[in-house]
Order: sequence, then C-alpha cells, then structure tokens
Amino acid sequence: MDIQLGKLIDRFGGQLKGDPDTRVSGFAPLDLAQASHITFLTNPRLRKQANVSHAAALILTPSDDERITDYAGARILTDNPYAYFAYAAQFFQSLQAEPHVPGIHESACIAPSARIAASAKIGPFVTIEADVEIGGNCVIDAGSFIGKGAKVGANTCFAPRVVFHALCVIGERCEVRSGAVIGSEGFGFANDKGVWVKIPQTGRVVIGNDVQIGANTTIDRGALADTVIEDGVKLDNQIQIGHNCHVGAHSAMAGCVGVAGSAVFGKRVTIGGAAMIGGHLKIADGTHVSASSVVQSSINEPGAYTGFYPLEKHTDWERTAVVLRNLTSMRQRVRELEKTVNSLGEKEE
Amino acid sequence: MDIQLGKLIDRFGGQLKGDPDTRVSGFAPLDLAQASHITFLTNPRLRKQANVSHAAALILTPSDDERITDYAGARILTDNPYAYFAYAAQFFQSLQAEPHVPGIHESACIAPSARIAASAKIGPFVTIEADVEIGGNCVIDAGSFIGKGAKVGANTCFAPRVVFHALCVIGERCEVRSGAVIGSEGFGFANDKGVWVKIPQTGRVVIGNDVQIGANTTIDRGALADTVIEDGVKLDNQIQIGHNCHVGAHSAMAGCVGVAGSAVFGKRVTIGGAAMIGGHLKIADGTHVSASSVVQSSINEPGAYTGFYPLEKHTDWERTAVVLRNLTSMRQRVRELEKTVNSLGEKEE
Amino acid sequence: MDIQLGKLIDRFGGQLKGDPDTRVSGFAPLDLAQASHITFLTNPRLRKQANVSHAAALILTPSDDERITDYAGARILTDNPYAYFAYAAQFFQSLQAEPHVPGIHESACIAPSARIAASAKIGPFVTIEADVEIGGNCVIDAGSFIGKGAKVGANTCFAPRVVFHALCVIGERCEVRSGAVIGSEGFGFANDKGVWVKIPQTGRVVIGNDVQIGANTTIDRGALADTVIEDGVKLDNQIQIGHNCHVGAHSAMAGCVGVAGSAVFGKRVTIGGAAMIGGHLKIADGTHVSASSVVQSSINEPGAYTGFYPLEKHTDWERTAVVLRNLTSMRQRVRELEKTVNSLGEKEE
Repeated sequence: MDIQLGKLIDRFGGQLKGDPDTRVSGFAPLDLAQASHITFLTNPRLRKQANVSHAAALILTPSDDERITDYAGARILTDNPYAYFAYAAQFFQSLQAEPHVPGIHESACIAPSARIAASAKIGPFVTIEADVEIGGNCVIDAGSFIGKGAKVGANTCFAPRVVFHALCVIGERCEVRSGAVIGSEGFGFANDKGVWVKIPQTGRVVIGNDVQIGANTTIDRGALADTVIEDGVKLDNQIQIGHNCHVGAHSAMAGCVGVAGSAVFGKRVTIGGAAMIGGHLKIADGTHVSASSVVQSSINEPGAYTGFYPLEKHTDWERTAVVLRNLTSMRQRVRELEKTVNSLGEKEE
Repeated sequence: MDIQLGKLIDRFGGQLKGDPDTRVSGFAPLDLAQASHITFLTNPRLRKQANVSHAAALILTPSDDERITDYAGARILTDNPYAYFAYAAQFFQSLQAEPHVPGIHESACIAPSARIAASAKIGPFVTIEADVEIGGNCVIDAGSFIGKGAKVGANTCFAPRVVFHALCVIGERCEVRSGAVIGSEGFGFANDKGVWVKIPQTGRVVIGNDVQIGANTTIDRGALADTVIEDGVKLDNQIQIGHNCHVGAHSAMAGCVGVAGSAVFGKRVTIGGAAMIGGHLKIADGTHVSASSVVQSSINEPGAYTGFYPLEKHTDWERTAVVLRNLTSMRQRVRELEKTVNSLGEKEE
Repeated sequence: MDIQLGKLIDRFGGQLKGDPDTRVSGFAPLDLAQASHITFLTNPRLRKQANVSHAAALILTPSDDERITDYAGARILTDNPYAYFAYAAQFFQSLQAEPHVPGIHESACIAPSARIAASAKIGPFVTIEADVEIGGNCVIDAGSFIGKGAKVGANTCFAPRVVFHALCVIGERCEVRSGAVIGSEGFGFANDKGVWVKIPQTGRVVIGNDVQIGANTTIDRGALADTVIEDGVKLDNQIQIGHNCHVGAHSAMAGCVGVAGSAVFGKRVTIGGAAMIGGHLKIADGTHVSASSVVQSSINEPGAYTGFYPLEKHTDWERTAVVLRNLTSMRQRVRELEKTVNSLGEKEE
C-alpha cells in the first residue's frame, strides 16, 4: 500500500521539490530508510545522515533544505517537519489499520441499562455496569471495567484491562492505555487519636476530549468536588494524579510523574519524567518543570524550573554530601572571615 | 435523604449551637455549601469562607467558634472537626449506598475447594483458586484473582482487577484498590559469574485489619520469611513494598513511595509522596519523612526528616549545580583562607 | 520431602565437611533454622548468628569456615555461597512444585489462528488474538491478554493479568509478573501551534531469553524501530521503560526505576531503585547507578555513580536549602576574600 507524494502535499501542504508521482509506502529513520520510504529531519545533529539517506523523500525545513546539498531524493519543505511527519504517519497508519468490527463480544458482561452505541466494539471479558453510556465508534478492549453511570465519549478507545470507575466522565477521541485506573478513591484520612479515619471520596474524575492516559497511570476521583483533566492533555505511563487535581488544557506529563491532591495546573504546562508536584499548589500557564524535579510551592511565573541533585562518581558524591550537610556552618565561617579581613584591612590604613 | 443535626450529635457527640431539628442532606466545601449542606472548618486560611458560608451547619473547634462571628447557621463544636467530618461523611455515604447483593457471578471461576461465605459478593470474571477462604460480607470485584490457599478476612473489599497471590493473608475491613498486586515474587537474585540466578520467593504477604492499599500498588511476598503489613496501615497508589518489609501499625504512605526489601517501619510512621526508603534499615515509631526524600540509613530518633533538592529557575540551577559539584574544593579554599588570615592576624600583634 | 547433603554436592558441587547422609528439607535464615534446615552465610555481620545456628548444614566460604568455630552442623564450602543457595533453593522448590497441567481453560478466548503448544497452560479469562504463537510449557495465567501476532518462547510464564501487545516478541524461560504491560504505545507527540499531535508507535518490544519483568512494570513499543531487552535482564516492579530503549544483556534494575525514550544501556548495567535515566543517552557496560539518582547525560566510563540529596532533620534541611540556593554568591564571596587576603599578604612584605 503506497501513495504518491503529490497526494501527501494535497492533504498536508508543504512545498514539494521533486516528482509528485514518486510513491512512498511508509516512514523509516534517516539511516534505515530505503527507496520506498519517506523520512524527516528535525535534529541538526542528523544532517549528515540526511545527506546520505536513501529515502525516496525527505521532510525538512527551508533552512535545512539549503544545508542538505548531497541528498538526491524528493524533498517536502515545511516549517514544522516533526508535526508534518506526525500527520503523515497517522495517515499511513490509517491506510494499513483494519477497521474495528462493531459489536459486543459474547463473553462481555453488560448491564441491561447500559447504553452502548451500535458502532462501538466491546471486547472479551469486559464488564459494563448499570447506566453506563458508550459513544459511537468506541473500542473497549478485553478485560476492561466501566463502573455504574460512567460516560465514555465517541471515538474513545480503552486498551485491554482499563478500569474506569463509577460516575466518571471521559470525552471524545481519547485513548486510555492498559492498566490505567481512573476514578479510584483518593487518599483521604482524618487522624483521630493516632488512628486513620477514612474520608469518603464522593467526587468524580471528569476528562475532556483528545486526552491520552498512559499504561498503569492512576487518576483518583475527587473527595467532595471533582478531579478535572482538560482537553488535549497527554499523560505518559505510571503517572499518579491525586484527588481534586485540575490539569489545564494541552498540558503534558512524561512517565512516573506524581501529582499530590488539589494541585492546579494552568494550560500548556509540561512536566518532565519522574518530577513530583506537591499538593494544594498552583502552576502557571506554560510552565516547564524538568525531569526528576520536586515542586513544593506554587509557580506563579512561567519559565523552566529544575531541582535535582547532579550526578557524581559515588566517591565524589560521598565527599560532597558531607560538605553539603555542613553548608550553614561554612557560610558562618565565610562571614567571620569577611569580618576579620575587614578589620585587618582597616588596621592597614 | 437527610438527617437532623440532633441525630448527628447523638451519634458522634460534639456541642450543638443551633436548632437540633435542622436537617442536612450531606457535606459540601465551605464555598459551595448551600442551605441543605453541612460543612467544616479545619484550615485557618478558610475562616473568611466560613464566615460567609451558606451551609446549614458548620463543624469547627471552640477556638474557631469565637473567631467566626458572621456565620449565621448552626454550629457543631468539637476538638477535631476533620475527624468529625470523616465519621459523619461515612454515615451520609452509608445512607445512600445500596447494600451489595451477596452471591457469586455466574461467569466467575471458583475452585470447588474454595470456602466462600454466603454473604460475600464475587463479581464477573473473578478467578478464585483451590483452598481460598473468603470471609463474610467480602466484595471481590470484577476480574480479580485470588491464588491458592489465600485468606481474605470478613468485610474486606477488593476493587476490580486486584491480584492477590497464593497463600497471602489479609484481615478484616480492608480495602484493596484496582490494579494492586499483592504477593508477587520479590526481586531476589544471586550473581554467578555475571549471570543472575533467581532466588525462589517462598514467603507470604501477611496483612492485618483495617488496611487500605491503593491502585496499582505492589507488595512483594517474602523470600524465606513473610512481608508484614500491620493493622490500620494506609497505602496510597503506585507504592512499591519490597520483599520481607515490615510496616508498623497505623503507618501511612502517600503515592509513589518506594520501599526496598527488608525495611522495618515502626508504628505510626508517615511517609510523604514519592519518598524512597532503602533496604535493610529501621525507621523509628512516629517518624515523618517528607515527600520526595531519600532515606538510605536507619532513623533511630523520631522527628521530621527531609532531603530533596530545592527547585530553582533552570538557569540558576545550572550555576548552583556546578558550584555544588566543587563544594569540597570550596571548603578547602575556606580552610586555607582561615589559615592565612590567622597568620596575618598574628603578625599584626 | 528431604534430601541428603551428599546429593546436593553431587548436583551443585562444593566441599562437604560432615556426614553426606545428613538429610535437609529446605532453607531457613540463620536465626530461624532448625535441625531439618540448611542455611547460608554471606553477610559478615551475621557470623555470630552462624556460630549459634541450629541448622543441620551451613553453606559458607572457606575463609568464613575458619572464622566460624562454634557451629556444630555440617558445612558446605564454596566461593559463592549466595549463588549456591540460589541453585539449591530452586532445586528444593522444584521438589515441592506441582507440575502445571497443560491445556486451555474453557473460559479462555483464543483466536482460531493462534498456535499454542499442546504442553502450554492457558488460564481462565485469557484473551489470545489472531496469529499469536505460544511455545512449549508456557503458562499464561488468568486474565492475561496477548495481542495479534505476538510470540512467546518456550517455558515462559505470564502471571495473572499480564498485557502483552500485538507483534511483540519474548524469548524462552522468561517470567512476567502480574499487571505488567509490554508493548503499549510510546509517548510520542509533535507540537503543532500548542496542540499535541500523536506520532503513531509502530515498532515492537523484542525481549530475549531468561528475562524477568516485575509487577506493574511497563515497557513501551518503539516508535519506528523496536524497543529491545536483551538476554538475562532482570526488571523489578513498577519500572517504566520508554520507547526505543535498548537494555543490554544481564542488566538489572530495582523497583520504581524510570528510563526515558531511546536510552541505550550496555551489558551488566545495574540501576538502584527509583533511579531516573534520561532519554537519548548511553550507559557504559558494567556501570552502577545508585538508588534514587538522576542520570541526565551519558556515562562513558564504568563505575558507581550517585546523585541524591542527603537526608537531614527537616529544620536543618530548611537552613541548608537556603544556603544551597545562594551557593554561587557564596563562591563569589570566597573569591573576593582570596583577592583581599592576597593583597593584604603582599602589603605585609
């Protein structure tokens, strides 16, 4: 199954330098691409690979186009080759994908009161409880569970073994990966004379459109109010979102991020992998937090923030750690030195 | 479904200021509460909200009672409003909750030798292996797995898709959330000339009463001895407890905490989110470890302990990190300065 | 079921000091071992326990043999007692283990085109899609899912509720624990004017022989190329491996480790628990990264590397953190002191 470059230009724009009838069958990396492939250049360090690539076509920026002198194949010029690649790759995938066959697998356990669109596909061993609503073209794959009164928007896909708890809501065109648990009870306890007393978690998780939730990621339902994930948010694997958090539209978090309860994210916030965000704080629109950084107070000014201990050879780290623990006394010694040197200086005069 | 304040006082104590016949239908936050709601004040920063709250009743401390002058509704005075809220909210939830219908779902796969109390509820696609014991009023929800010879105490609930491995034991009134894996084999290998040789993990996980285990949390079975979780322990989501750990009664850990093998916790230890506890160490009763902190040696003296790198603007962090790496040389320079200044000072005399 | 020490020597070597007809029924720790048990000494701090152990037999090094004077039982001398214990414990386990009964559970959902060895065991509620291949003596336990065209090598075991996605490949004698998700789509998005555009993840996960994958661990499929886990790799629980990573043979990672996309590990790399490895970097053969350390650039020279903030009492940490944030200014003050003291010194002459 291949396609002419001209057809890609018709669909996705860009300026073609080369024969519009050139046919390509799919993407490959610069170094592995063969005559049937299309590839792309985004990383300046790969210009050499681009120069000698055997790909039939190369997606690149106009400025890189001038730099890449030896490459002989066709070229597609665009200001954002990576996004162009994303759209075109989705198109190639759609050509190969078998359309899902609608219907409910005979082994699935579906409550009579559930409303499931005829165009939806429900896999084996799926449990769907009372009053659930499943929209058109949804795929709920093997072993997934959807609790009472939950709502799933059209064209949303649950991978095998997703748990989506009672009353939670997810919008359209979302993807939830295997092992994700949405709407589990939040971690809320009052302490009564040394014993923990559970606080019922009666809120929901409310998720917008075009949201992606990674494998084994957990999002807790709210305590009294709801936990909210706005449109276009992308969450990687093994992320934990505590109860009553609010994640602004088009924010993205890499794997292993933890977010404590009631944190409020602005829009387009990006969080690096394994960063940890404290509870009851606010993060401004467009903020970036580096991987492995710890945020324990609100960030009101957008920008890039970092806080992790730099790696050293273990023996060096041991020495540094000792000095670090005595940093306040070192500051004190510097202050005293300044005083003494000052007085010495005065005596000079 | 609502209830008179007088009835709440009869059940949960506290001093009522207002009409005992006032009816409330449930809880709401201070700012959202309406005339049918009851609410509570625990955070001093919310006193203003309390003053203008529309709630029918407000739970607060005697000292806050004096400070809250404008609020017009009924008041319940108690020394621990948060615990009072927890107990009362549980009561409201019990009024609304439909009692579970006992019985074994027709799709469940139950070994003939399993002993399941008649009052227990077993959901769809549950697997229960030979010689398992399930106590009265248990709920084992959809897709859960319980291995050979495991024991589940009365009134314990497994959410959908819990895995509880062979021979493990859990007490009464526990809650295990979706995706939790209890009793998986621990990570034990001997290295034989560069190749890892597996050490069989033949211990169990033994869990007490009133324990809560969060979504996608994992607790490994012991190697030779058992992994033990005592009564009243509360574990949030995505926590990893290594083999042979012992967690003391009424300890609590927030999300994403990792505990390496053979760590021994005292009672009432609290661990902040994403903190990491090393293996083979002891933590004293009542110790608190802050979120994102790393514990690599035993804590013998109770108290609050912290160790994470403070967040900075990324450009500042880059500069700080360079100096940090050279901290030992800086200390050396300070020492030399002190020597020189000392000798200079002596020459003065 | 017990065995004579002489038989163990025949199987696993080592030098026996004592009666070869002494019978032992299994392993126990030094302090708990009774007359029917065999035990081992690897930790020098436990020599006292070894001296007074009631075990029938003790595995130890020749050098420890000289130090342990009081212990009266039989002894097995070997250079690697821990590995000896591992092999012997596996043997004891094999004596007790019931052989699995081959066959496909009646509730399992198996595509007609799947090729499943007659000696394999497929548990309840397992889903196996089209064109899957399952090798001899495999165990695929309850509720697991294997996607289209995936291949599972002989003698490999999936615990209950494993997800193994389409086209992925795993070798022989592997163990995958409950809740693991292998081959989920990687986290790849292009940003187009503030909106995230998904990049199809069309690579696979390819896993070698003798690999262990822990509970709730996730390994993403590659974007264009494959994610590769070589022979003998051991991964603990709750580890996240990003798309296109390559993990070298006999590497081992403890729980909660995160590895970002396209990281390349050499052979025999060991990573401590909760360490975080950045994307697109290389780690040299035999490198060790300490627990909770953050690696954000390539490690070309083998050795032990560490980077986590040392724990302090919270009040001390607060003070240290303030000084740490001002470390660059402190360095500046030290430099100025050196200048001043220098000039003072010159004036002296």
